[in-house]
Amino acid sequence: MMRNIAAMQARVTALGATLRPHVKTSKCIEVGRLQRDAGARGITVSTLKEAEEFFAAGFDDILYAVGIAPQKLGRVLALRRAGCRLLILVDSLAGARAVVDTGRAEQHGFEVMIEIDTDGHRSGVAPDDDLLIAVGETLQGGGATLTGVLTHAGSSYALSSPEALARMAEQERAGCVRAATRLRAAGLPCPVVSVGSTPTALSAQRLDGVTEVRAGVYVFFDLVMANVGVCRPQDIALSVLATVIGHQAEKGWAITDAGWMAMSRDRGTQSQGVDYGYGAVCDAAGTVLDGYVVGGANQEHGIVARRDGAADPDIAGRFPVGTRLRILPNHACATATQFDLYHVVDRDGATRTWRRFHGW
Amino acid sequence: MMRNIAAMQARVTALGATLRPHVKTSKCIEVGRLQRDAGARGITVSTLKEAEEFFAAGFDDILYAVGIAPQKLGRVLALRRAGCRLLILVDSLAGARAVVDTGRAEQHGFEVMIEIDTDGHRSGVAPDDDLLIAVGETLQGGGATLTGVLTHAGSSYALSSPEALARMAEQERAGCVRAATRLRAAGLPCPVVSVGSTPTALSAQRLDGVTEVRAGVYVFFDLVMANVGVCRPQDIALSVLATVIGHQAEKGWAITDAGWMAMSRDRGTQSQGVDYGYGAVCDAAGTVLDGYVVGGANQEHGIVARRDGAADPDIAGRFPVGTRLRILPNHACATATQFDLYHVVDRDGATRTWRRFHGW
Repeated sequence: MMRNIAAMQARVTALGATLRPHVKTSKCIEVGRLQRDAGARGITVSTLKEAEEFFAAGFDDILYAVGIAPQKLGRVLALRRAGCRLLILVDSLAGARAVVDTGRAEQHGFEVMIEIDTDGHRSGVAPDDDLLIAVGETLQGGGATLTGVLTHAGSSYALSSPEALARMAEQERAGCVRAATRLRAAGLPCPVVSVGSTPTALSAQRLDGVTEVRAGVYVFFDLVMANVGVCRPQDIALSVLATVIGHQAEKGWAITDAGWMAMSRDRGTQSQGVDYGYGAVCDAAGTVLDGYVVGGANQEHGIVARRDGAADPDIAGRFPVGTRLRILPNHACATATQFDLYHVVDRDGATRTWRRFHGW
Repeated sequence: MMRNIAAMQARVTALGATLRPHVKTSKCIEVGRLQRDAGARGITVSTLKEAEEFFAAGFDDILYAVGIAPQKLGRVLALRRAGCRLLILVDSLAGARAVVDTGRAEQHGFEVMIEIDTDGHRSGVAPDDDLLIAVGETLQGGGATLTGVLTHAGSSYALSSPEALARMAEQERAGCVRAATRLRAAGLPCPVVSVGSTPTALSAQRLDGVTEVRAGVYVFFDLVMANVGVCRPQDIALSVLATVIGHQAEKGWAITDAGWMAMSRDRGTQSQGVDYGYGAVCDAAGTVLDGYVVGGANQEHGIVARRDGAADPDIAGRFPVGTRLRILPNHACATATQFDLYHVVDRDGATRTWRRFHGW
């Protein structure tokens, strides 16, 4: 994890932007502190719960990177009045008007980003849509502060070649910078140009015009990212420690106590180059046991078997009852949220626990 | 939920068995109390954390229905010495020997069930396998108490006709009773014959020879169970309250703040008769809005769209920013675990919160 944090920070710094890590992956104060200590400027959150938790721990520059629901402005206001520089996000006139109306009623000037859609995968205004200027004018004319534009090329997760990733990173960069340029040409402020996803952040060749990069999953990495090609399996810093509880020897199955409740139902590698089932199998020290995956899962049962589907005739001898195995996750965000605690392994092998929170 | 609890209890009682509800679905003390008040005898758990939480709340007859890992016997022993009648499960000689060895070292007689495999989907000893008798003799001869046999026809989740479900329920019953009969014929005790899954419990025509039924998901039900045919969508007692935060009007999408982090990654209906995506859409009062589903999901974004794939041209008018929608889950166990609290709605519309716990 420490290597992953340092590598992303160095890369974003070298490209001339600041890094605002997305703490939705860890939801852990201690991890956020390590990212800050490494040079991050502010954090990104996916829920107001994250904002509240991190603000209570001393983080006061927070970007809430999910379009604001009008019903949530009261909690936003409470954080801002308590001294948190909490930025919010809109991508519609209805959203902008709700922010402006609440700001007027509460005599408060919210700081707002506009979400830009650079790859069609989710939310946001297209960079060349006239709606962009209308949203900016509604905010700025209504007493809010237009802080900048934000985009997330989430479709980068579906790519797997360096060339395609570099093209997507450039598409993300160019689209977001284009939106900023149009806003400025319309006489509107746009100091912040925020882009990012772990794959594009690690694939961008240049970030001209971009001021900050957001990325989350890089802190742990996972098998989906390994398939995308932006990390190696041995870079994955999150694993589930499982125990063998039985076998179905004639099927070549070892049954563990880590089913989908531990791994999550995320099957993100199913559509990728290597399908790891519900996870890749390592020994207790973390060395990948090539060819073995969690091929199936019930709620509290994982089925460890050969990835090629052949039945290992010696599965019970290879992994006797009581054997500890580490399972690498398809998707770190999804697996981590199945747990309340991280068991953190230090360089010297000592472990301690860090709290992970849930909720919205 | 109250109707679901009463209906399952009445059905199992009518078939001449006792009900030992599986609390892995709710992981909530208050829900377990309602099941007990309705007539349940003991509970089933999927983790020792559940056993510890429920014992601390006064439940002292607990079946841990996942094969025991030797490393967990210390926690089992602590609960039993504190007065909890905690039953454990094995399906191998290695497991039985670990229990016996620990029992000898600690001078403690564990109460143990043997898991029976009646449908090939997971763990367990086949009813006619000689291993069954060897495991029983190892336990009973080694100072443990053989309490009975247990099976779970989890493959019932893949069925959808009343006839196939009734056949699977009979297969589950007959296989488990056969195992008990063989143990008794070998001179071993087998007072408890425990079967169950929500679909088979609701489809069994008779339970001759069975002493208890286990079922979990019936307490809330979900869309997978509706597709199996053992409940109606309006019986589903668990929903996620989502808020519309934007639109992609030309695609016919309304974006909500309930993505897969709220719904879980479970796509259990994908392989069933009706694919509900990440959930079925209801208005805030819980009335199903036919034809609308959460067709896609990012971590914190749900994409509400027509199930038939056609773009609703009036999606933004139909579900304006700020609209509240209730989303019914594919799988209640998976969705519920994404949350720390239940917001419980009483008959009169009042709400209160019940804690839900995580962990192992």
